[in-house]
Amino acid sequence: MSHAGPEPTERTRVHRHPERGFYDRETIDAILDEALFCHVGYVEDGKPRVIPTIHVRVGDTVYIHGSSASHTLRAIKHGGEVCLVTTLLDGLVLARSAFSHSMNYRSVVVYGTAREVTDPDEKWAAQKALVDHVVPGRSEQARMPNDAELRQTSILAIYLEEASAKVRTGPPKDDEEDLGLQTWAGVLPLYTVPGEPVDDPHLPPGLAPPPNVTGYRRPNRRPTST
Amino acid sequence: MSHAGPEPTERTRVHRHPERGFYDRETIDAILDEALFCHVGYVEDGKPRVIPTIHVRVGDTVYIHGSSASHTLRAIKHGGEVCLVTTLLDGLVLARSAFSHSMNYRSVVVYGTAREVTDPDEKWAAQKALVDHVVPGRSEQARMPNDAELRQTSILAIYLEEASAKVRTGPPKDDEEDLGLQTWAGVLPLYTVPGEPVDDPHLPPGLAPPPNVTGYRRPNRRPTST
Repeated sequence: MSHAGPEPTERTRVHRHPERGFYDRETIDAILDEALFCHVGYVEDGKPRVIPTIHVRVGDTVYIHGSSASHTLRAIKHGGEVCLVTTLLDGLVLARSAFSHSMNYRSVVVYGTAREVTDPDEKWAAQKALVDHVVPGRSEQARMPNDAELRQTSILAIYLEEASAKVRTGPPKDDEEDLGLQTWAGVLPLYTVPGEPVDDPHLPPGLAPPPNVTGYRRPNRRPTST
Repeated sequence: MSHAGPEPTERTRVHRHPERGFYDRETIDAILDEALFCHVGYVEDGKPRVIPTIHVRVGDTVYIHGSSASHTLRAIKHGGEVCLVTTLLDGLVLARSAFSHSMNYRSVVVYGTAREVTDPDEKWAAQKALVDHVVPGRSEQARMPNDAELRQTSILAIYLEEASAKVRTGPPKDDEEDLGLQTWAGVLPLYTVPGEPVDDPHLPPGLAPPPNVTGYRRPNRRPTST
């Protein structure tokens, strides 16, 4: 698999702030892999709809899942076009001028059509990957789906072909004439951090959270430098 | 202003997990006010588009902004319908069964048409609110926009009428027959926390970050109880 990524299309090319546009798969994959959820946009009766949902990337495919009875999944699983976006907020960019305020972030947009996964092996692998995407190793700890649960779950696949990343890093970019203002300027980094695990009320005594929970952190929390 | 909120419409009513649906303005407003950014979906040439962007709620209106040259803003500012969604992730819900895994979150969806703000007073107030939404009090510290900057910025307003919240809180909900499994189950809370402020490289010596930066926290980090 080439990591060069496809050429940007008209809608994946970053027009505003083109210096923030990245089209290589390494950058795109790292953002998709770190993000715990995404927003999926689709069109229904000519109107926009957007839902938050969990995703996982496996190779060149992004999988989303949901109840087989889900309105959204039924709406898009017959080849409807989707726009999947995920955004990681890395910091607040506080400039001297209000106009130059910004945020440091890493986002990915993927355009594609959704294909319902019907092959049992692919469906199983996608379910496992979704669980492990949220907590690595969790599929070895949890009871995996039985046949009834598999039937109740739809998995949709979106081929990772038409995609791009947009990344802002670094300090504010005030105009030259504002640099003398006596206003503090800089970046306030933001992080997503875990708290203490909260036991389920039905847990038997002495069953402690495993190391992948107590030592939880997101992989690759490493802003791509511009 | 009533806080009861309007009756849900077919598309704002939460069908999957109806117990997670909230239609009162108090719940909706708290989520919109805490979230630092949102995703806006719209339709262009019959296709779905979604962009991440900063928003702010002022009374019954949600404002978004961007460059007057922005492709997105030009696409929706003439009354195009939008679907604005924001999602706060509160924790990972780790059940005994993979099927019962979930996330604790608070999300809001707003449907509406975008109106371009042309009234100078409203435009100014919206700009101020956008700055203060990200860092309360920042509009008193930063140089506010001059005429040229105001002209380069478009503000769009979406009336907060057709909206709903979806909130999941609490422990996993495993099936009765899974409760005896020797798998740790519970919730791993997640928080967005600030790091140390990073000075802009052009900052004169001795100019320290103000208290609204050093003591930064999001307001109302308080999950709505179900």
